[in-house]
Amino acid sequence: MNRRGVRGDDCVELDVRVRYAETDSMGVVYHANYLVWFEMGRSEYCRTRGFNYRDLEDAGYYLVVSEARCTYRKPARYDEVVQVRTFLHALRRRSLCFRYQVVRQGSRETLVEGETKHLCIDAAGRVKVIPDRYVAFLAQGLPIHDSHG
Amino acid sequence: MNRRGVRGDDCVELDVRVRYAETDSMGVVYHANYLVWFEMGRSEYCRTRGFNYRDLEDAGYYLVVSEARCTYRKPARYDEVVQVRTFLHALRRRSLCFRYQVVRQGSRETLVEGETKHLCIDAAGRVKVIPDRYVAFLAQGLPIHDSHG
Amino acid sequence: MNRRGVRGDDCVELDVRVRYAETDSMGVVYHANYLVWFEMGRSEYCRTRGFNYRDLEDAGYYLVVSEARCTYRKPARYDEVVQVRTFLHALRRRSLCFRYQVVRQGSRETLVEGETKHLCIDAAGRVKVIPDRYVAFLAQGLPIHDSHG
Amino acid sequence: MNRRGVRGDDCVELDVRVRYAETDSMGVVYHANYLVWFEMGRSEYCRTRGFNYRDLEDAGYYLVVSEARCTYRKPARYDEVVQVRTFLHALRRRSLCFRYQVVRQGSRETLVEGETKHLCIDAAGRVKVIPDRYVAFLAQGLPIHDSHG
Repeated sequence: MNRRGVRGDDCVELDVRVRYAETDSMGVVYHANYLVWFEMGRSEYCRTRGFNYRDLEDAGYYLVVSEARCTYRKPARYDEVVQVRTFLHALRRRSLCFRYQVVRQGSRETLVEGETKHLCIDAAGRVKVIPDRYVAFLAQGLPIHDSHG
Repeated sequence: MNRRGVRGDDCVELDVRVRYAETDSMGVVYHANYLVWFEMGRSEYCRTRGFNYRDLEDAGYYLVVSEARCTYRKPARYDEVVQVRTFLHALRRRSLCFRYQVVRQGSRETLVEGETKHLCIDAAGRVKVIPDRYVAFLAQGLPIHDSHG
Repeated sequence: MNRRGVRGDDCVELDVRVRYAETDSMGVVYHANYLVWFEMGRSEYCRTRGFNYRDLEDAGYYLVVSEARCTYRKPARYDEVVQVRTFLHALRRRSLCFRYQVVRQGSRETLVEGETKHLCIDAAGRVKVIPDRYVAFLAQGLPIHDSHG
Repeated sequence: MNRRGVRGDDCVELDVRVRYAETDSMGVVYHANYLVWFEMGRSEYCRTRGFNYRDLEDAGYYLVVSEARCTYRKPARYDEVVQVRTFLHALRRRSLCFRYQVVRQGSRETLVEGETKHLCIDAAGRVKVIPDRYVAFLAQGLPIHDSHG
């Protein structure tokens, strides 16, 4: 995953301990659960940038997932602590894109990388411009030179 | 689990094939998932008795779970088909109780037994009388001599 | 998603009824659950082609997910029945690729499209050639002109 | 839930932030997820008492759930932080029992209470005596006067 211009301090880190419920018969974390961890990463990202994603929903806006992708390199196991690193990759008027790395705590080993794209909609499902207030919060985490045009 | 008076045809049966996602590191179905299967059993129960649980929600009523219990006898594994047998055990004005058996398909082996109690509430969380229309549907599945007083 | 050469009968269809557990606060199916449905689609695919994925595991081989992607077009809701259509898109010596469409039952409306790539490994995590026996089963579903070189 | 003799310091506390994935169409945490939080509580309990549950499994022992029950009083919502309080209620030669309270962080409001019973088995599914080493760790958290006879 190529993230030109993203400085290290642009990512928000969240530690997650693997639950037994998240493992499968193969003895490793079931692959769909990484999307759940990405969601937790996004929530943490918003919180670190100054707002709760829930506030956005209370204001009538939803950042629904329009695309997701995930590359699995190495498995995680029960009781391990992994770090979910969340980056805001692109911020546009009606959409945004986050990228993620899941690394084993205390190592530089990348287990999984991923990306989610989001569309801003209202309760009726209509595409909406992300409110300025939240754009300002989110933009703090943007890589340099990446405009939200 | 003692279900006096419940005739065999009072239960509604639903086949469920175990998903990989439902297993855990121990190679068996993770215990919390049986509660999910019970929920599927309840939905099927309603459907068989003539209505969709969703209709009830659309009408502004929710049968929230107030209690759940589960006894685990034998494990189920990936790709097995199990049968979820759902019984309406008690029907009262504002609450009801379902009981469940999960049996291995093609055998009489009981894997799990359980019970859930439900309270009828409205969208504001207030306890409500279950609407007559739905009581009539549900009551068809009641054991003989069990009144809904 | 471009699937040149894939005839209609190359896909394996599986009906899935949306569980309450699969929905989220937005009132729709939580996005990670589509990956679970894809997994069910793969299991059904194998079964239709003549083997159980579990047999492959019992023989010491695992088709682990190396990549997954998903495009979300429209939401599904509680109690709806959706159809998961699974296609074998590519079959190589040590890997394969499935594609999926989730459509609303009784309509031609595509809700979600996706793809998963898999690597064949053994219990020790070493990449392995997919055993001939299973290649033969799987190859039946391949689009014309797509070799497994 | 009556826990005579359990002093306040006998419980192990774990904070859990509600994930979007854990909510359902009703806008609250789906009831089966509390069993997952209980499992996290048990893991944390073991860790606090001096061992990892994973060590026990690596030694060939499993504390499988034989019974679970849960009483739901109030709902939790997305992004809230709840505290899972885990108590060792009984410790016997081949089995043990944990109790749980889920409370809203920063309040004394109990959302959910529950109990799980566990049997010690080996990889072949045979009931086993819990190894002394782990009994010693676990017994530290026992209420006074409760022997493990």
